[in-house]
Amino acid sequence: ITSRYMRRLAASTDIPEDSPYFKVPEGFNAPQQVHITQGDYEGNAVIVSWVTTEEPGDSKVYYGKEPGSNYTDYVVGTAGTYSFYNYTSGFIHHSTISGLEFNTKYYYTLGAGQSPREFWFVTPPESELDTPYTFGVIGDLGQTFDSLSTLQHYMNSSGQSLLYVGDLSYADNYPFDNNVRWDTWGRFVEPSTAYQPWIWTAGNHELDYIPEVGETEPFKPFTHRYLTPYKATNSTSQLWYSIKRGPATIIVLSSYSAYGKYTPQYKWFLNALAAVDRSVTPWLIVLVHSPWYNSNTYHYMEGETMRVIFEPFIVQYKVDIVFAGHVHAYERTYPVSNVKYDIVNALCTPEKNETAPVYVVIGDGGNIEGLAGVYTQPQPAYSAFREASFGHGLFEIYNHTHAYFTWHRNQDGEKVAADSAIILNKYWYSATSA
Amino acid sequence: ITSRYMRRLAASTDIPEDSPYFKVPEGFNAPQQVHITQGDYEGNAVIVSWVTTEEPGDSKVYYGKEPGSNYTDYVVGTAGTYSFYNYTSGFIHHSTISGLEFNTKYYYTLGAGQSPREFWFVTPPESELDTPYTFGVIGDLGQTFDSLSTLQHYMNSSGQSLLYVGDLSYADNYPFDNNVRWDTWGRFVEPSTAYQPWIWTAGNHELDYIPEVGETEPFKPFTHRYLTPYKATNSTSQLWYSIKRGPATIIVLSSYSAYGKYTPQYKWFLNALAAVDRSVTPWLIVLVHSPWYNSNTYHYMEGETMRVIFEPFIVQYKVDIVFAGHVHAYERTYPVSNVKYDIVNALCTPEKNETAPVYVVIGDGGNIEGLAGVYTQPQPAYSAFREASFGHGLFEIYNHTHAYFTWHRNQDGEKVAADSAIILNKYWYSATSA
Ligand SMILES: [Fe+3]
Ligand SMILES: [Fe+3]
Ligand SMILES: [Zn+2]
Ligand SMILES: [Zn+2]
Repeated sequence: ITSRYMRRLAASTDIPEDSPYFKVPEGFNAPQQVHITQGDYEGNAVIVSWVTTEEPGDSKVYYGKEPGSNYTDYVVGTAGTYSFYNYTSGFIHHSTISGLEFNTKYYYTLGAGQSPREFWFVTPPESELDTPYTFGVIGDLGQTFDSLSTLQHYMNSSGQSLLYVGDLSYADNYPFDNNVRWDTWGRFVEPSTAYQPWIWTAGNHELDYIPEVGETEPFKPFTHRYLTPYKATNSTSQLWYSIKRGPATIIVLSSYSAYGKYTPQYKWFLNALAAVDRSVTPWLIVLVHSPWYNSNTYHYMEGETMRVIFEPFIVQYKVDIVFAGHVHAYERTYPVSNVKYDIVNALCTPEKNETAPVYVVIGDGGNIEGLAGVYTQPQPAYSAFREASFGHGLFEIYNHTHAYFTWHRNQDGEKVAADSAIILNKYWYSATSA
Repeated sequence: ITSRYMRRLAASTDIPEDSPYFKVPEGFNAPQQVHITQGDYEGNAVIVSWVTTEEPGDSKVYYGKEPGSNYTDYVVGTAGTYSFYNYTSGFIHHSTISGLEFNTKYYYTLGAGQSPREFWFVTPPESELDTPYTFGVIGDLGQTFDSLSTLQHYMNSSGQSLLYVGDLSYADNYPFDNNVRWDTWGRFVEPSTAYQPWIWTAGNHELDYIPEVGETEPFKPFTHRYLTPYKATNSTSQLWYSIKRGPATIIVLSSYSAYGKYTPQYKWFLNALAAVDRSVTPWLIVLVHSPWYNSNTYHYMEGETMRVIFEPFIVQYKVDIVFAGHVHAYERTYPVSNVKYDIVNALCTPEKNETAPVYVVIGDGGNIEGLAGVYTQPQPAYSAFREASFGHGLFEIYNHTHAYFTWHRNQDGEKVAADSAIILNKYWYSATSA
């Protein structure tokens, strides 16, 4: 169905730089833009990142199971800056806390001795077959008032950590990708990112590639600001990596890096799939920015170049669900595949396939480029639901056979699911029901 | 037709390191592995490269229109080394000679003052509409006795410069990609590469990517040894660039770099196509390692990932011919295209299209991996001729409407064409004949 729900399609406007949502925290050299992400493959480590602007300060993170000053441990990370055209960043700190216990709330403090700020996070549960866990899913968020609505809706949800499918700040909508808008975005999302890991995927808006002014290193701002635990799975790039988190293995791909056969990402991806043990993490999730199944006219067929080479492996390894962004609207497919083509057999039409993944496009975080309101007509058979509205998703894992995906439109109250679907585990469900 | 010509399919063996074909030239610090390539977009510059092993020496190249010591000019280039696992290169020199006149024979000397060696080259003709010119085409050469046969056949041909479609030395068939076999290859091809430019394309065997031993910079040996004039067309990578040479514009793509929409290679490619003026260079040639049309079972469909995103532009801009390697056999298609697919229309079968390019697979240079002797059956409609034999091609441009492609099997004398086809200029011919 294509929901007829009407909402204005005008492009959104960014929150002004002097807005309270971008306020720099009080105090000398106060840590800002605080964000955490998973720091290892198993889920026992967290990378804590933040920025200070007056001076490097120290990269110390005190942490422990009790709040306040009686911390038991600390780690010392590193800090550095980067420049982009006429912009130079603040001191960007990254410190990794390892050896954490599963399913435990930890408090941590940054800026001790200058302007201390305390936060907390909860580590994921150890993965048993029927461990429940809920991931939030957001893409193409940006920093408009629609973005704010999406963020606030998500923060009121049951999401325990966030699968972010790329296109973060949209700083590149400003002259020379004005990286000040990377800083505002960092402060804007801190209310969530300081308290739960956002699992980062690189989108096209992370390229920041302006050869005309000598900025020819793709992804420079993104890779300086948002680390990922890529080395834990022998990846050689921050842009593709995989992690285990609770009952799921999450494989993150990079649409804008090389992935032809023999390339580093290709070789890594096949190893990452082969390494998954579904008896340990029953659910297998893939994140990629550019969608393989998208019936919106916006970016139509852009994902084919990766789909034709990677889809056979996704189906072979029974991936359960693939989340993508890039298209600023929402769409959910039935379980589908399109892997029978051999150049001469004309078998190139997507077909329903219960053993294949569900594909979700969720690039409707609310960024400045506005909604992609025009779908191809008629709605193709592979498309179950589609609507051009801002919102976020929740992937609630019940047990090793059933999960529940819901999509929440910003216009509704948080608890309302504008679209929902039971997702059956492709590895376990087919086994039990066979 | 699939030629029934039988020849042994056993893998070839490399020429032994102590063979005369790899002999280091006489004299202290004598320049070796001498090779030239085009040094600019227009055809008035040449990059001269060579290696010295005892000491850096100077990177001077004396040149002029007369041989012997009465040179008129000289340029001074740069020299450097690289290391790869437990190998360290000799001093690799690169010097660019600019401001050369068209259609002129120049002599040049390296190693003056130590062990001088003199060579010559002929600059391309200025491009007028009906300028004749002949390109040789070789792929996946390697350094076996079959490779030697291919090289000798080519050196006896009318080829004025060589379009090389990737996979050079096959050093990566040795433990830790033993880069000594890059040096032997350099000496092996010098008899041709010192006298005419080889236009380099990167293949998968140029990746030299061994993360297990810390070699994680793809293409390191290749990019240190074989420069390309990529900056002349605002490319930000040696691996993709374009040049004008006589009556042709040659666009070189990289199968193993990123090329999704928004990536540097994608953006560069669209600009490179748009910049072509067919009234100046009537012929438009594309080089890419991994073939888009290939009916051999070897590497079957590997080229789809690039074809689906780039083929529409190749057809739109009326590219005349696309040369690829990678498949160790020979194949020529009719003019074909496969650009009507829209996900739901099932229009995904290649069709003959007189305004589309001819695709040639010519990865049959003779390397150690041997011939790819098994084709898919039956021969598909898009495939005009295919045979699993070692050999090389010649693309002989007569005028702005007609060129003649011939394929020369090593078993035959050079003058024998085992396959041939008149190639009609897609831009001009359709105009005149309409
Ligand atoms: Fe986006
Ligand atoms: Fe090859
Ligand atoms: Zn995007
Ligand atoms: Zn190859």
